[in-house]
Formats: sequence, C-alpha cells, structure tokens
Amino acid sequence: MNSPVKIGLLGFGTVGSGVWQVIANNADEIAIKTGCPVQISKVLVRNKSKYETADIDVELTTDIQDILNDPDIQIVVEVIGGKEPALTYMLAALGNGKHVVTANKDVVAEFGKELFDTAAKNNVDFMFEGSVGGGIPIIRPLKQCLAANRISEVMGIVNGTTNYMLSKMAKEHIDFATVLAQAQAQGYAEADPTADVGGWDAARKIAILASIAFGTRINLDDVYVEGITNISLEDIEYAKEFGYAIKLLAIAKEYQQNDGLAVNVRVHPAMLPCHHPLTAVQDVFNAIYVKGDAVGETMFYGRGAGKLPTASAVVGDIIDIARNIQHHAASRILCTCFAHKPVFPMEKTESPYYMRLLVADQPGVLAAIASAFGAQQVSLHTVVQKRKVNQFAELVLITYRVSEVNMQLAINILRSMSIVAEICSVIRVEEDIK
Amino acid sequence: MNSPVKIGLLGFGTVGSGVWQVIANNADEIAIKTGCPVQISKVLVRNKSKYETADIDVELTTDIQDILNDPDIQIVVEVIGGKEPALTYMLAALGNGKHVVTANKDVVAEFGKELFDTAAKNNVDFMFEGSVGGGIPIIRPLKQCLAANRISEVMGIVNGTTNYMLSKMAKEHIDFATVLAQAQAQGYAEADPTADVGGWDAARKIAILASIAFGTRINLDDVYVEGITNISLEDIEYAKEFGYAIKLLAIAKEYQQNDGLAVNVRVHPAMLPCHHPLTAVQDVFNAIYVKGDAVGETMFYGRGAGKLPTASAVVGDIIDIARNIQHHAASRILCTCFAHKPVFPMEKTESPYYMRLLVADQPGVLAAIASAFGAQQVSLHTVVQKRKVNQFAELVLITYRVSEVNMQLAINILRSMSIVAEICSVIRVEEDIK
Repeated sequence: MNSPVKIGLLGFGTVGSGVWQVIANNADEIAIKTGCPVQISKVLVRNKSKYETADIDVELTTDIQDILNDPDIQIVVEVIGGKEPALTYMLAALGNGKHVVTANKDVVAEFGKELFDTAAKNNVDFMFEGSVGGGIPIIRPLKQCLAANRISEVMGIVNGTTNYMLSKMAKEHIDFATVLAQAQAQGYAEADPTADVGGWDAARKIAILASIAFGTRINLDDVYVEGITNISLEDIEYAKEFGYAIKLLAIAKEYQQNDGLAVNVRVHPAMLPCHHPLTAVQDVFNAIYVKGDAVGETMFYGRGAGKLPTASAVVGDIIDIARNIQHHAASRILCTCFAHKPVFPMEKTESPYYMRLLVADQPGVLAAIASAFGAQQVSLHTVVQKRKVNQFAELVLITYRVSEVNMQLAINILRSMSIVAEICSVIRVEEDIK
Repeated sequence: MNSPVKIGLLGFGTVGSGVWQVIANNADEIAIKTGCPVQISKVLVRNKSKYETADIDVELTTDIQDILNDPDIQIVVEVIGGKEPALTYMLAALGNGKHVVTANKDVVAEFGKELFDTAAKNNVDFMFEGSVGGGIPIIRPLKQCLAANRISEVMGIVNGTTNYMLSKMAKEHIDFATVLAQAQAQGYAEADPTADVGGWDAARKIAILASIAFGTRINLDDVYVEGITNISLEDIEYAKEFGYAIKLLAIAKEYQQNDGLAVNVRVHPAMLPCHHPLTAVQDVFNAIYVKGDAVGETMFYGRGAGKLPTASAVVGDIIDIARNIQHHAASRILCTCFAHKPVFPMEKTESPYYMRLLVADQPGVLAAIASAFGAQQVSLHTVVQKRKVNQFAELVLITYRVSEVNMQLAINILRSMSIVAEICSVIRVEEDIK
C-alpha cells in the first residue's frame, strides 16, 4: 500500500461532516480501491470551540494558510459553499499545486473557466461531481461514458425543493402558498425561497451541465430563467387532464444557426407528457435526461441534495484524484469546453404553449381570441371552456408549436383586448405538437 | 495534436459497424476530447468479399495475426460476440501489450478474472462498459462515481426483449405465446429465445454488475436463474390490481452471514410496487437501480442494446483508453474484485410471495390451505377469491415475508393436497411486507 493521500477539508457543515463520515465509514474499502489510504488531515472551521466535544480525530484550524501551505496536503476539498471566500481559497489551493474538489455550484457556474485555467497551469485536478444532482453520477458520465456522442439535449429536474412542491401540489391538491409554507416548516425550503422557487439554483446547475454536454462555456447570464411562483393548482389539474405533469425543467438544447451550432439554455416550468421518464421523478428526487446521437435517450436518477448523497459525489472525486496521483496522471481530464458556440436566443425557440385566461362570457369572444392568435401565426390545438370564474368564462388552450417571439406578440395583443379580463398562466409544453 | 491512436476492430457486424459509424461521425470532437485522433486502421472480418462495395476506407483482414502483430495498433476492440474465438483473441491482444475494449457479456461474465489478470500482467487497459445495459453508463459509475459507497443492492431490468414482452402483455392484454411470436416477427426476440426469456442473458449481466458493486468475483454459476416463460396474462392483471408490475429483475444484494458479508445474485420475475422507479421502465428500455450507503437510491436508464447505443459505450471506452495513453496512465483502474465474499444461498433469502392456484370449490378449503401455509411459518397478507376456472375456485394470495426454504416446503405440501388442483404460478414480491 502506498503512502496516504492527505486532504484539507474547507468547511465542516452539512456536506463537510458528510464527507468526513463517508471517509470514516468506508476507509478500508476506499484505501483498497485507490491503492492508498485517504485521510482528512486538517479541517478549516470558523470557530474551533464549536467542535471541542466532537469525536473527530483531526486538526482543526481557523487559518486557511495552515492548509494552503501544508506540503503534505495534496487535495483541498471545498464545501463552504457560496462565492467568497470559497473561490479565493480554491484558486489559491490550485495555485499552490493542490488538487481541488468542490460541490459548489455557484462558483463552478460562474468561475469555472478561471478555476480550470488555474488547474491546467498548475497541472492539478479540479473536480465538481457534487455540484449538480447531489450524488447522481452525471458530470463523469457526460465527460467520459457519453464522450463518443454528439449531445442534442439535456433536460433535468435538478432542484429538489421545487420538485417536492410540485409533486405535493399534484398529489394532495393544495395550492402553492400552502405547500411552500409546509416545505419551509419541514426544512425542504429556505426562509427566503427565491433561489429555489425562482429557478436560480436550477439555472446554475444547467449552466454547468450545458457547458460539459455541448463543449462550450455557458455562463449564468446565458440562461433564461422563470420560476414556479405563478404555477397554480388549477394549472396542475388541467395538465393532468390533458395527460401532462408540470415540472420545473432545466433545459439545454443545441440548434443550427447560420451554418453553425448554437446552444439555448433555459429554466422554466413546463408541461411534460406523462409517458416521459422525467414525469416519474417525484418529491425531492432529481433526474437528468440526456439525448445523444449514438446512445439515444438516457436518464440519471437519484437524490439531488443532502449530506450523504453530496458526500458520495465528493468522495468519488477524491478517489478519482487519488487514483490519478498513484498513476501520475493528474489533470487527465480538465475543461472540456473546446468550442465556442453562441447562445441561441430564447425568442427563436419554439414550443407549444398552454394558456389559461379569463374572458368576457359573451358571444363571439372565442372567435376574437382565435383570430388574435391567428394574426401572429399561432394555431390552437386544444381549446377547453369548462366553467365560470366570477362573471368570466375560463378558457384553457394549448397551441401548436410556435416561436417564442410570436407567442409573446400574441400575449401582448390578448392583454390589450377588452374582452380578456386576465391571462392567468402561460406554460410551455415540452412535446412536439406540430 | 498528438499522433493518432490506432485501433484493430474484431468483427464488423451490428455493433462493429456502429463503432465504425460513431467514430466516423464524431471524429473531430473525439480527437479534441482525447488530444489525439482515434482511427480504426484494420478490421477483422470472416469474408472480405462481403465488404467490397462498402464505402469504408480501412484495411480488411481475415487473419487475426495481422492485427495482433501490428505494432501500430494500440487498442483492440472485440465485437465478434460469443465465447470463442473472442476470448482467445482478447487474451492474445492483451498478451501482446494491446489495450482491449469489448461489449461481450458472455466472455466478461465467465472469464473476467483471466482477462483482468492478463491485462494487469501486461500493464494495459481492459474495458467493457458496453457489456451491460448497452449505452447506459453503469460500469464506470459503479467503479468511479459511486466508489465511496458500500453498495447494498443492485437491481436491474437488463434484458430488453423480456421487458418489451412483459410491457406489451400488460398494455395490450395479450398472452405470452402471442407476444413472443410478435417479438420474434419484429426482430426483438430470436428464433431460439431461451437466452432472453430463460433469464440467461440477464444472469450474465448481473454477474458482471455484482462483481463490481460488491468487489468480489461472481460467476455465472453463482446466479440463481428463473425466466418468464411461466408468466401468464392473468398474473400480470392481478399484479396490476394489487398495485404491482411484473418485471424480469436481475438482483444482487449483500447479506450478513457468520460475522462476514455474503452476496446473493439472482434473476427471476418479480412483482414490483408501482411507485418503484423501475416500474416506469417500459418496452425495450433497460435501467439499473443501485442503492449505496451514502448516495441512497440511484437509477441509470436508457437503451440496453442496439447498434449505436452499444457503440456509444464501446467508443466511450476507447476515448478513456486514448486519454490514458496520452497521460501514460494505462491500467489506471483494472479489476476491482478485492474481496472474497461467499454466495448467500437462495434458500436463506426472504421475500413475500404471490401465488395463484386452483382449488376444490367446497367449504373448508381456505382453512386447510391457510393451515398448510401456517405449518411452514408462512403467513398470508392478502387472499382473493374472485372467480371459478372450470369446476375449481381460483385463489390468489400474497404472503408476508418468508424464507425461500419455508416457501418451497409449503409449495410441496400444497402440491400433495387433494383439494389443490394446480399451483398456476408463484412469483416473488420485491417489497418488504413484514
């Protein structure tokens, strides 16, 4: 057995203590697999006294330099989270010739290039399997197992909080505000739920996945983001009636544009036909659906967050680096963004749309609305009028596939019509209704 | 760009021509990812004249020595299938210092150790991602991404033919013989369907997965195998009524035994509760469900066979080896069977059972049957009697969890009872009914 690989762990919160626990529980097996023991030798904490009674046999430090300047530490594991000081610490560690593992989606989504460049310059590894989908293997499958493919589509349920909320609304027939309050009470949603329900957490994750799948750097700013705050119980129940489930999807697709390739990346609620494997993903589970020219459809499913699932991914990366160390193969696979594909603009994307609106309950209204749509080249596939809401008629419709720009024009015109009292909701349908 | 990595391709059938096509289609991207072009330089075929008109720019040969002795060929890709001559060719290639990629489940399941030993001795790579689950990434996720976990369970739908048949029986209410004839007509099932419907194809695949997941060599002989030939439409419809789907499952689980760990590996039809993610796997799709102590539940889904999906896995392995060649890191990860865990005997496994039987339609029969079960410590959870079949009453029951040995004793006793006309089916239930 070779000499141990020593780790400096930055942060001892939920994920950090999970990493500790996984390495402690499975130390012997990990040592056999990697060919050397893997040991956490120092942990950076904010307050040492907090851990005085904890049964952990490791040196605690409050000074990052203790880790950065320790020549015995070969791998720095960053599980502090957030932008700073995590980014500065990681860049310094890479600069000092240490391999870095992180589960920090914020930093990877926004500073991936800088981190990779620094890793390459110093011939060290930079890995981040835990930054997307918790314990679900997805980064390595995309970079390695599916490397023979031209990927055309990545579509994921990558935020557990919103999937839990949407699943619960559908199952228990409760509205958004109620389910949010319950999720907050159970600790599934934060006091300020914006990052989750606003789609920003998912946006960071799909930026990371899209960069790898399409081999081009996608920044957070490139992602179109719409959250689930406007999803009502009525929409969920109409969706079910039409054979759909509403999911917050993170989508990245490649398009032909001016003889080249462009990538559109977006997060929004969508109606997904019930035969799609992603609709079976319930509660806090995550799944990432990937379509490649050779492999066809694949899907990766599991717990997208949490102490041990995320630690599973982080320690998997540590093992991979330890194996690289044994074989003198550091930086075997680093940044795979070799191309420069422009962003395909949201206006040019196409999809069918679901719309629910309240209109005047009088003759000729349906004709006027259909003709307003028609003037913008929007054809209607389904129109349902079932009930009255106050003095208005509720109209629910699904269009054929239409470009985003035409749909937005149609929406603006509808809004200006006196017979339209309210456009309650507009939701994209992730199915090809041509 | 470094000098090309050259490949000798053994076999140009379905998968072989798929490998050729994937490399041809995505050559530029593959070269950028690996840092060197990847080229098929020679193809071993049985009959050269068959390819005279084919538009393939490569040297064809009918002599394996042309490839084995070509010093420029670094990777040999075996896609002939079957045991021989595939095994001999692969051992010779490894012995000549060539890396080997295969999609051959027969050889990997039965001669994995020999192949790995030869690879290790010659410091070359041996990879086989395509041997299980076609294009679904599963070997690399188990060996790398989930390496931090102690895996407790691997459960897969790994045979597309039988999953297609069972899905079609359930959807279209047709019986086994009809669906088999249809599957044969459509090319989904072979003229001699034994390997698929008898469970032997699945057995080879789960032997491979179990060896990796539990780090101990599982041979084909270690696998308990039961096929789907006895599954009737009646059972499928009763299953649905009870909230289950019948799937041919390949299962590997770790058990405590005499202060150590043992592994049970089996293939049999099972009733799976409809909330289990594997029940959503329809038609020819495959999926492998993996449970680990850190990651919890994960699932890997996709097309488990076919020209391009299998080629996706094979070329993914080629890319991985090409990357290893660039980094002088050959045989970075070889055999991971470091432990020797005995086989946990089938008799000692426990599960609830579904049974359908025809009994005399007279008073006291149910009591007699319940007491026969009770004498073997088998408790009944559900008993349904709905209809008569000829002059008999059809009894459908589900037991609580019971050991295999007790269940078999109970079955033997029932068979000897004059009031029991026929035990139509006995199917394990993959749910913990305690």
